[in-house]
Amino acid sequence: MSPTSRSSVGRHRERARTDRADLYAVLDAGLVCHLGLVVDGAPVVLPTGYGRIGDTVYLHGSTGARYLQAAGQAVPVCLTVTHVDGVVYARSVFSHSMNYRSAVVHGVTRAVTDDDERLAALRAIVEQLSPGSWGHARLPTRRELAATAVLAVDLAEASVKVRTGPPADDEEDVAAGGRWAGVLPVRTVFGAPEPCPRLASDVPAPPHVVTR
Amino acid sequence: MSPTSRSSVGRHRERARTDRADLYAVLDAGLVCHLGLVVDGAPVVLPTGYGRIGDTVYLHGSTGARYLQAAGQAVPVCLTVTHVDGVVYARSVFSHSMNYRSAVVHGVTRAVTDDDERLAALRAIVEQLSPGSWGHARLPTRRELAATAVLAVDLAEASVKVRTGPPADDEEDVAAGGRWAGVLPVRTVFGAPEPCPRLASDVPAPPHVVTR
Repeated sequence: MSPTSRSSVGRHRERARTDRADLYAVLDAGLVCHLGLVVDGAPVVLPTGYGRIGDTVYLHGSTGARYLQAAGQAVPVCLTVTHVDGVVYARSVFSHSMNYRSAVVHGVTRAVTDDDERLAALRAIVEQLSPGSWGHARLPTRRELAATAVLAVDLAEASVKVRTGPPADDEEDVAAGGRWAGVLPVRTVFGAPEPCPRLASDVPAPPHVVTR
Repeated sequence: MSPTSRSSVGRHRERARTDRADLYAVLDAGLVCHLGLVVDGAPVVLPTGYGRIGDTVYLHGSTGARYLQAAGQAVPVCLTVTHVDGVVYARSVFSHSMNYRSAVVHGVTRAVTDDDERLAALRAIVEQLSPGSWGHARLPTRRELAATAVLAVDLAEASVKVRTGPPADDEEDVAAGGRWAGVLPVRTVFGAPEPCPRLASDVPAPPHVVTR
């Protein structure tokens, strides 16, 4: 991730992965992607939810959202999902880095108009954010569906980068000793469910929430 | 974040913040930003580290990195930092959402060439990633500095959006009852330090790592 990362004497690995399974794994583990668009010649990067079915990523939004109106017209987008796995403390500040997994998808948006595909896409987006919610929560009405734009991006042009392992210090810095070096793991965790204040007290949090 | 979020009957809040303190707080709490560039007319979104000094955000990278060479020439960028704070489980799938804080910075890159500003910028970037490392780890050599490009982006055009609180279900869904609704908090936490395998066993993890 850090552009200063170089191949070095350490036992860390930072490399592009070419396996589809790696791509799916990084995408499927995310809560948000960062969606890049070009608006009036300038880049715009917005966080948003997403879902995946096979080799297609789906996005959704209000039909009134300006950026989705633009993206509905087959515009180029870049969609990036990043997981930070650790802060890499090196013996030199220059070799400080991060352990991470990231997927970068380049594509052109396709407006999804087929009813079945739209519903499948929305299900994938909801299940990405909150597995188990589709079916537990009330499903969309016709009016809600009409108010929702759905976009598809093909995964044909996607890359994955992963860094793992200890710092990649220069030999001299390792030999000099004295300075601590290692990795501080970073994790994303879920806390205890906080019921809606308007929820009746006899409605327990369901297993798909409690066991997440 | 979810483009489907609407103002509604709930007690949640989703709004743009205009206070500089809110902007600083979101930026200062992040480990990575997502940097958007336009390359050959198409958007590119890459995760990268950053640091802030006053109303300037700094980025760094190898002088050989292609995207930084482009960005060195005063090109428009968008730099977005997002924190996911919770998954919002609503009574309807349509009202599912996220609690989050995000900062979106639009600007034009400035290549930093002044030696003092470069060093201050690198310090800010390292301290953002790993507070306390500057001074504990070996500082950059002349050669390392020469190999590092530093870019500045002004915070003049920046916005913050924050969503907090319970789901914003429709009144009918609340009245219908039966379905659980609430928030599952999401947090980023640090694990126990993992010493580099090449570190002597008598070098303890320093306080700035242990107490993070």
